[in-house]
Amino acid sequence: MPAGGRAGPRVVIVGGGFGGLYASKVLGAAGVPLTVVDPRNFHLFQPLLYQVATGGLSPGDIASPIRSVLRRHASTVVWRDEAVDVAPRERRVFLRGGAVLSYDRLIVASGSRTSYFGRREWEAAATGLKSVEDALRIRQRVLGAFERAEMEPDPARREVLLTFVVVGGGPTGVELAGAIAELSRTTMARDFRAIDPARTRILLLEAGERLLPVFPPGLSARARRSLESLGVEVRTGTMVTDIGAAHVGVQSGDESAAIPTATVLWAAGVTVSAFGDRVAGRFGAERDRAGRLVVRADLSLPGHPEVYVIGDLAHAAGAQGRPLPGVAPVAMQQGRYVARLILGREQGPFRYRDKGQLAVIGRHAAVCDLGRARLAGRPAWFLWLFVHIAYLIEYDNKILVLVQWAYNYFTRKRGARLITHEPGADA
Amino acid sequence: MPAGGRAGPRVVIVGGGFGGLYASKVLGAAGVPLTVVDPRNFHLFQPLLYQVATGGLSPGDIASPIRSVLRRHASTVVWRDEAVDVAPRERRVFLRGGAVLSYDRLIVASGSRTSYFGRREWEAAATGLKSVEDALRIRQRVLGAFERAEMEPDPARREVLLTFVVVGGGPTGVELAGAIAELSRTTMARDFRAIDPARTRILLLEAGERLLPVFPPGLSARARRSLESLGVEVRTGTMVTDIGAAHVGVQSGDESAAIPTATVLWAAGVTVSAFGDRVAGRFGAERDRAGRLVVRADLSLPGHPEVYVIGDLAHAAGAQGRPLPGVAPVAMQQGRYVARLILGREQGPFRYRDKGQLAVIGRHAAVCDLGRARLAGRPAWFLWLFVHIAYLIEYDNKILVLVQWAYNYFTRKRGARLITHEPGADA
Repeated sequence: MPAGGRAGPRVVIVGGGFGGLYASKVLGAAGVPLTVVDPRNFHLFQPLLYQVATGGLSPGDIASPIRSVLRRHASTVVWRDEAVDVAPRERRVFLRGGAVLSYDRLIVASGSRTSYFGRREWEAAATGLKSVEDALRIRQRVLGAFERAEMEPDPARREVLLTFVVVGGGPTGVELAGAIAELSRTTMARDFRAIDPARTRILLLEAGERLLPVFPPGLSARARRSLESLGVEVRTGTMVTDIGAAHVGVQSGDESAAIPTATVLWAAGVTVSAFGDRVAGRFGAERDRAGRLVVRADLSLPGHPEVYVIGDLAHAAGAQGRPLPGVAPVAMQQGRYVARLILGREQGPFRYRDKGQLAVIGRHAAVCDLGRARLAGRPAWFLWLFVHIAYLIEYDNKILVLVQWAYNYFTRKRGARLITHEPGADA
Repeated sequence: MPAGGRAGPRVVIVGGGFGGLYASKVLGAAGVPLTVVDPRNFHLFQPLLYQVATGGLSPGDIASPIRSVLRRHASTVVWRDEAVDVAPRERRVFLRGGAVLSYDRLIVASGSRTSYFGRREWEAAATGLKSVEDALRIRQRVLGAFERAEMEPDPARREVLLTFVVVGGGPTGVELAGAIAELSRTTMARDFRAIDPARTRILLLEAGERLLPVFPPGLSARARRSLESLGVEVRTGTMVTDIGAAHVGVQSGDESAAIPTATVLWAAGVTVSAFGDRVAGRFGAERDRAGRLVVRADLSLPGHPEVYVIGDLAHAAGAQGRPLPGVAPVAMQQGRYVARLILGREQGPFRYRDKGQLAVIGRHAAVCDLGRARLAGRPAWFLWLFVHIAYLIEYDNKILVLVQWAYNYFTRKRGARLITHEPGADA
């Protein structure tokens, strides 16, 4: 049994994302016997996953092996396996591989997964963006559509191949739509003979009234204008009613329509991980509409002060009674807070220090809501760049990404435009 | 039909590797109507594939989209499909997608694939190293073995997991074995708790009498000593007789033995691509023992001056009656030669300008045979680095790789240690 023979409370952390990793670093540095469980051997910098999906970065650029990040802490054991169940009374976590971990404190940070709002049949046609595999699948689908269009003799079919629909107007959808627009209008503008990639049609569908609903309305409008100047058709107030292999059915008010398209990307919603569901069931936790587990002010589960739920999984009260958003800074701060709580270095409820929100639209365009200040356009883009690089550097000296980026920025190239892992692609 | 409406000989090039790409660049620059067919959308810098396999580089670092490389040549069409058949009399190439390309000149440059010498059943257990997918599979298997060993309670089983067998003592096998040794003894030395990666056992098996048989014996001996100082067990004169899920059967002289191992990597042989086989059949071409098509002094097929076979596929006469080796410089020079021949700028037979051979063993160690001069150790390593960077830069300004490398070199990190695409790894 890992980390079993030492003194002090045995801590098990499920999940090596932002929340789990930040908790691990604080607890590990204090010498607490700690086991980190994750089915993946790497931590992923998810805010940049859309760059992998659009060929700007390689998976290795935005991932760090969890073992490397935590290697200095001798009391920390990394267990590469998937947590599948938990026994509250016995205080045990069960792993898929058969191992059982006993805990004195449990930190549940297993994150979220793509949600199709109960329409599982949409999953095959509409790729989400949560994992490296998702990103490479999007890359494969988007680049593959251009390749197939180039070889397609039928003009109508060609148009379908060159129509990309992004569902969901939150930061991920906005970033994806912007990146695909740049990819087609700039990077690949001269790569083809039969088609003109600059005439690609990119639609961004949002059910709500405006893009980026968590931002102030003024910035939503700015984001919309920026996307439109890149050639993205933004349709707010538009519900998706149906997704097939060659079309998306939409409804706007009383009007219904079908948009012919070969590529639908899904950025419309997430729900808690499978282990999160299991924890909720075993502990009888209250859940919100998005499935998140309602936690107390100290992020513990009601009636179970030894179990903490953090990050995308947690419904924690924020300002004006609204729950905190599922973004990286919240998870990081929660991870650090819970670790300090376990070490007795923290008292009182968790308070989120909101440093602002950022969304990037393309080369030079972004929107930032810093509470007091609001930025858009080029200054926002540089701030976005700075913040992301700063965080990347913090955990693994990823200054390389800066170089890669500067290179992409100045050359407008996206070097990582590989179509891999396509069935039958091995020649 | 692509490139069909223009004047001049219509050229079809099958394969976007070194041979095909170099031919394309010369013909494209001259404005010849040209169609390049490849099932992959990228050219791969294969000499560095072992770095992807061992987590030092990402696939995007050693690949360039074929369309980007050839984008400036308006008469060049890139067709992303697989050539599956050819009709010599009608001068047509048939593609898997159903398209048919007519040619006046055909350049067959579809390369080689891993060969198991008729033992197809070894393919599942012994991963080859020819494609990006192969490299990621090796990465997954090697890193996965360490992960499983860390969680394995049985010491005997743990030892099996920490035994890596590389079959084949040519450049690929030497480079792979050296890189795995470095990975385990340096990069990951402190990453685990239950196991000591530095005690990993790495065996390099070669059926012949010495490593790197195409190098002079002195350099073979140097390479062996370098590998041994990295902790690799080198076994020459050792035949593989059997490969299973948990062992390799070997024979050395009259002695037989079974080496328990969970990871076997195959660098022992290649054979021509499936399209190469088809071309040989349709044109009734003579073949050598490795299956390569015997070509005339101008690299055309006997009786078919309109068909050229270049690169790994071709058996072309070299010095002392030996065929030219299947290495990148041969393919590049052949591609350029054939293109110039078609343009009427070249006469006489193909002559290979041998600038030397290089093989890298690890950080700081390599062997170089420059004909007149022979280098080993650190100077050879720097020469190897310089030559590879120079070639990378030539076709896509890949100075980024130099930066990545410098970073890996100084930090001894291998940042791209991601285990991806493993069944069930999506959490």
